[in-house]
Amino acid sequence: MITERIRYAPLRDKVVSAEAAAAHIRDGMTIGMSGFTRAGEAKAVPMALAARAREAHARGEPLSICLITGASLGNDLDKQLAEAHVLSRRIPFQSDPALRRAINAGEVMFVDQHLSETVELLRTRQIGPVDVAVIEAVAITEQGGIVPTTSVGNSASFAILAEKVIVEINLSQPTLLEGLHDIYIPTRRPIRHPIPIVAPENRVGLPFIPVDPEKIAAVVVTTKLDSSANVEPPDDDTRAIAGHLIELLKHEVAVGRLSTQLQPLQAGIGTTANAVLHGLIDSPFHNLTMYSEVLQDSTFDLFDAGRLDFASGSSITLSRPKYEAVLPELARYKSRLVLRPQEISNHPEIIRRLGLIAINTALEFDLYGNINSTHVGGTHMMNGIGGSGDFARNAFLSVFITRSVAKEGRISAVVPMVSHVDHTEHDVDIVVTEQGLADLRGLAPRERAALIIRNCAHPDYRDALADYVARATPRGGQTPHLIEEALGWHAALRETGTMRRA
Amino acid sequence: MITERIRYAPLRDKVVSAEAAAAHIRDGMTIGMSGFTRAGEAKAVPMALAARAREAHARGEPLSICLITGASLGNDLDKQLAEAHVLSRRIPFQSDPALRRAINAGEVMFVDQHLSETVELLRTRQIGPVDVAVIEAVAITEQGGIVPTTSVGNSASFAILAEKVIVEINLSQPTLLEGLHDIYIPTRRPIRHPIPIVAPENRVGLPFIPVDPEKIAAVVVTTKLDSSANVEPPDDDTRAIAGHLIELLKHEVAVGRLSTQLQPLQAGIGTTANAVLHGLIDSPFHNLTMYSEVLQDSTFDLFDAGRLDFASGSSITLSRPKYEAVLPELARYKSRLVLRPQEISNHPEIIRRLGLIAINTALEFDLYGNINSTHVGGTHMMNGIGGSGDFARNAFLSVFITRSVAKEGRISAVVPMVSHVDHTEHDVDIVVTEQGLADLRGLAPRERAALIIRNCAHPDYRDALADYVARATPRGGQTPHLIEEALGWHAALRETGTMRRA
Repeated sequence: MITERIRYAPLRDKVVSAEAAAAHIRDGMTIGMSGFTRAGEAKAVPMALAARAREAHARGEPLSICLITGASLGNDLDKQLAEAHVLSRRIPFQSDPALRRAINAGEVMFVDQHLSETVELLRTRQIGPVDVAVIEAVAITEQGGIVPTTSVGNSASFAILAEKVIVEINLSQPTLLEGLHDIYIPTRRPIRHPIPIVAPENRVGLPFIPVDPEKIAAVVVTTKLDSSANVEPPDDDTRAIAGHLIELLKHEVAVGRLSTQLQPLQAGIGTTANAVLHGLIDSPFHNLTMYSEVLQDSTFDLFDAGRLDFASGSSITLSRPKYEAVLPELARYKSRLVLRPQEISNHPEIIRRLGLIAINTALEFDLYGNINSTHVGGTHMMNGIGGSGDFARNAFLSVFITRSVAKEGRISAVVPMVSHVDHTEHDVDIVVTEQGLADLRGLAPRERAALIIRNCAHPDYRDALADYVARATPRGGQTPHLIEEALGWHAALRETGTMRRA
Repeated sequence: MITERIRYAPLRDKVVSAEAAAAHIRDGMTIGMSGFTRAGEAKAVPMALAARAREAHARGEPLSICLITGASLGNDLDKQLAEAHVLSRRIPFQSDPALRRAINAGEVMFVDQHLSETVELLRTRQIGPVDVAVIEAVAITEQGGIVPTTSVGNSASFAILAEKVIVEINLSQPTLLEGLHDIYIPTRRPIRHPIPIVAPENRVGLPFIPVDPEKIAAVVVTTKLDSSANVEPPDDDTRAIAGHLIELLKHEVAVGRLSTQLQPLQAGIGTTANAVLHGLIDSPFHNLTMYSEVLQDSTFDLFDAGRLDFASGSSITLSRPKYEAVLPELARYKSRLVLRPQEISNHPEIIRRLGLIAINTALEFDLYGNINSTHVGGTHMMNGIGGSGDFARNAFLSVFITRSVAKEGRISAVVPMVSHVDHTEHDVDIVVTEQGLADLRGLAPRERAALIIRNCAHPDYRDALADYVARATPRGGQTPHLIEEALGWHAALRETGTMRRA
């Protein structure tokens, strides 16, 4: 078994315990770890590192690192690492409540980055360098190449750029995953060539990460499964959001701006985006393709419904039942799937070229179409911007979705001014809530406000929003505001627990 | 003379007065006009349109259009059109005080767009269609191709997509301009090919705009010069900004992240960016290249100083003395210059590939590195986002510059929270004022704040900014704020005329 998984024989001698491998990680280092949206993270070495950090700290010895990943880690690893106080800095995305608390307390310096950009910054040495890369793999090839598991993320560039590499061979990850990946690294400047992808199904790289096997300092064998996705099933609100969006897409087909194949789809992670894709099962659209970052349950449901021809992503993150249904059957899906480095899945060049329909989730949006994706109350980090900026900026059609209210109606997702901006009005074409959809294309801010209030705001907040606009407009401006109360709803929420009394 | 300028003979019969040509423009139409940063705009037909609109309105007849351009128009055309009330909608950029007043009064709906995106939206019919294109040209070729003048802007796609085309042959624009342009239009989806530019000097298209000459409905002959640029000479502040930035670039060379050739340069329009480029004349850098949108005086000064090897742009906008020096001598510069459609000069694909050093101007920035480029007081439009977002998002190094105070110190350009966000902290690497430079790469928001206060804020405002951070931080958060007073400096400015008493 191990022979098949470690086909480059000299590396079989490098198999060690997780603890021994983790010993390569020392205080102050920058570590690049595999893992993207809770899929394909290295599992044993981070746990061993957390345990060692607890011991070291008990002895009064320092041990903390800058941890760079693809995106969020599964198996509570971000929690374990945060609670072991081994993270001094964390880049570029996370979604764990314990780590979030540490970030918001100022204990962990979190650098929230567009997911396409991290390895570009590493490659040009504007961050880093990476001392050690820790990469989960299905296998090591005859030449010493590393075959990733359920995600690629930033693993390829971590392994290529790091001084040392630790590989975790996960025996629970099916060998069928081999051949699924397409590892393409942009060529070196001064002459960097165009990335030759012109359709989601194009394969332009290698099925493994090419590294000098001499750099592989340790191999650890593991068996722990990926965490399952925590998406919830569609409900009335998410079905309504999907319905509004599908109506718009039908209209676009009717006026000839889209064919019934649409354009390649991207959907952000989470319940709402997953539900919107689900909605396409009972739509008139067919021969769909995806060029996305995370492939969720809905991707495979669309395959099974005969709606989807091909899906390109950087990770596969599934619910437990879907994981158990899909992974053993991977041979059925494999010719219609590819996993790419997140630099490529999220690359502005490809997104603009292919012309995606990008569907991402907002925390809140404002009267003028600016989006807050990350900061609760303008201050507290939720997860991070992730790939939403990569996609929204460059998409053919950039859609943001959210429920119109949260916390039993105490919070309106439509506000006079967002408390933090992740996506400016320039990058937002369509906003949708369960109430309805506002098509902002070609509209000036004053026109956007009227449409958003009428179509998207919850009825409980419509009058207050309209009153704000009515009082702000006489002051003039491209984007009317009462600057002294523009964030008053957020201040009221903070003081009183609701935006209703703003 | 006209024979040389209109080489496709059948079009010589289409020469008419500006008034007759303007008659093709009717109420409610969408018109695409040449012109980018006051260079190469059609000059006679817009004036005739403005005159006709005044007459029509005096008779109580409606006449208004949606005007789409490359960027700002010269020769007071935006003013004339605004004052004739002929603009119902204006896309995607302007810089005229009279038009600005009409926009901020809500009389003209202004759609402020990334300059790379307008023709993408037109091509996919998400805005438009363009009824009539009005394009200034040096000549019409033997095949009926249109040779632009001092800018390309969106002219190529306007002419290709419009139902009718009006060409203004400007006899004052030197015929030497022919051969300067490189007209590349992305291929049609579903298979759009990579744009084959891998270096600023690559020519990948045609030296003229290919159109069906049957579509050319009228030709007008004009002689008016382009307006001159209104940049001011470097002063102590702009020299200090240039000095701080050059120190940083020297450091980047010293640590091996840049060579002494640097990376291709982009600089926004205006006095400060022009002055920063000027600063490179007395720097250790050489064999520089530019991949920018507007080529200003500094481009030619860098050529003359032997510092610059090649410059790619979408327009040439010069002061009167520089215009008079350069235009007759164009033969000397021509092999080192290219003018491209703004879709290509500003294309995310190329900007990311080439790895630009992008230098753009901020109106204000905040403690966490978010940038306001457009909205005075959060409400009133200045010019528009222009290409700054195209460049900042995709650059190797994204730099924003501004003086630390305005209006005799009554306004601080460094504020607790910007009143409008055009560029989020994710897209900003370096901020510079005459006070100093903050290198934000790899830093979390809390770290950014300390650096920005220390290095960039004006001494008069440092204590107040530090006090804000000191009071906000105990509340926690990735990005500490006192949400109820985050925009208090702007509110104080509005009420009292100064931020000093905030």
